[in-house]
Amino acid sequence: MRVLDRGDQLRKELDAARAAGRTVGLVPTMGALHEGHASLIRRSAAECDVTAVTVFVNPLQFEHSEFEHSEFEHSEFGHSEDFATYPRDLPRDVDVAAAAGAGLLFAPPVEDMYPSRPTVTVTVAGEDVLEGAARPGHFDGVATVVAKLFNLAGPCRAYFGEKDWQQLRVVRRLVADLSFPVEVVACPTVREADGLALSSRNVRLSAEERQAATVLYRALTAYPHQAMADVVATEPLATLDYAEVVDDRLLIAARIGGVRLIDNIHIDLLEVS
Amino acid sequence: MRVLDRGDQLRKELDAARAAGRTVGLVPTMGALHEGHASLIRRSAAECDVTAVTVFVNPLQFEHSEFEHSEFEHSEFGHSEDFATYPRDLPRDVDVAAAAGAGLLFAPPVEDMYPSRPTVTVTVAGEDVLEGAARPGHFDGVATVVAKLFNLAGPCRAYFGEKDWQQLRVVRRLVADLSFPVEVVACPTVREADGLALSSRNVRLSAEERQAATVLYRALTAYPHQAMADVVATEPLATLDYAEVVDDRLLIAARIGGVRLIDNIHIDLLEVS
Repeated sequence: MRVLDRGDQLRKELDAARAAGRTVGLVPTMGALHEGHASLIRRSAAECDVTAVTVFVNPLQFEHSEFEHSEFEHSEFGHSEDFATYPRDLPRDVDVAAAAGAGLLFAPPVEDMYPSRPTVTVTVAGEDVLEGAARPGHFDGVATVVAKLFNLAGPCRAYFGEKDWQQLRVVRRLVADLSFPVEVVACPTVREADGLALSSRNVRLSAEERQAATVLYRALTAYPHQAMADVVATEPLATLDYAEVVDDRLLIAARIGGVRLIDNIHIDLLEVS
Repeated sequence: MRVLDRGDQLRKELDAARAAGRTVGLVPTMGALHEGHASLIRRSAAECDVTAVTVFVNPLQFEHSEFEHSEFEHSEFGHSEDFATYPRDLPRDVDVAAAAGAGLLFAPPVEDMYPSRPTVTVTVAGEDVLEGAARPGHFDGVATVVAKLFNLAGPCRAYFGEKDWQQLRVVRRLVADLSFPVEVVACPTVREADGLALSSRNVRLSAEERQAATVLYRALTAYPHQAMADVVATEPLATLDYAEVVDDRLLIAARIGGVRLIDNIHIDLLEVS
């Protein structure tokens, strides 16, 4: 596996692969790769000739409103605690990606992706609910960096986890509305044995919080026999942000100590009726 | 020359051309092709193996604010008089494009480009001056449709006229900020013998207004010996919108009767000093 840190290198490698008749799979991540990411990479490697994993903690999707009003200085990203403390471990990411079958890992510095503050960005309307309500501007930042990664990678299949269900919806709309030459592939959430959805933020949980964090999955699976909010209320370390039914999914967000976690599951309509 | 009306056809044709080792030139237009457009097409045909001309009067860039607040119904675009009256003549466009050397002409209906109201769009910051001040939301609409056309066309050289100088600046930022695999080529403004910049809107001028319209170029070329506003003031049919110096360009916009026209020229610094 080759590790690249410049967008033009990624484009060149993937253009060359396609010119040689090879198909490209893209797995965009923020690093701190876990078994959930590995499952995306393995699926891409099984379905595509070349798999490129991207590792980039995108400042635009962290506390966007502050970002918008500050001059663009990379040191100022420290204003966002979540951005500053988001787990980073590139050497380990390289091992995980290579073991899962990636052929390329693209890990650019912020200066390569944003040499200056971007003035042309992507805006998402109608998603100011759920994560969009909790994190204003978040999906604009997501859509902007994903658009940029799609443009660097070129025509491909792109793999996203269902755990970030609303993000998946945003990426599908991005592709449809702006006609990106990308096929979005949704992959199931990977869970610990006790149901906790894998997330890079889980490493921030204390041992006690880690136990409490199972309340998200317990709440999802108790529905409709018990209200999700009632289940979360039984857990002293948990503070519910939202628990909602949207289309055919149950979605939940809660703060466990200082760590905000999200999860969702598909409703089995037969079981509900 | 082949005429296409669906985005997936354009993508397929241009992907096939590139796969066969041919380079692609793209000339995005709103149709009503004149000698200015023909000069872009000829340049593209001289520099690229295949030239695709796009003809699409993009509702998003006409009175965007109304569009944003209305439900998406194609009949409602009639609210914008400029959109409704923008000249359209596809049979003639086909002749002009073919004669200038285009290999493909893509003229989609609105429903193909926007099957439903787009929720993911491109937003341009910092351009709320000049045309951006006169036409709020205009450059968001331009950037959105150009992003979509770039995604449908794939890697290419894209030809834009200098007459729409601020639009050219926006397109360059779009490409840089979102990393489109596109090389933007700027082409000089084509003028009538009396200096009037060619524009599709010129056909709306009465004979008297057509005479008066030369005041834009006369004002530009009188600078710095005479104030541009003073030159425009000598023309009873003209109402100045702005006359400004930005970087190394003089830019002017004025209404001639009911037709709003713009123009710009490069400042020869030696002559000014």
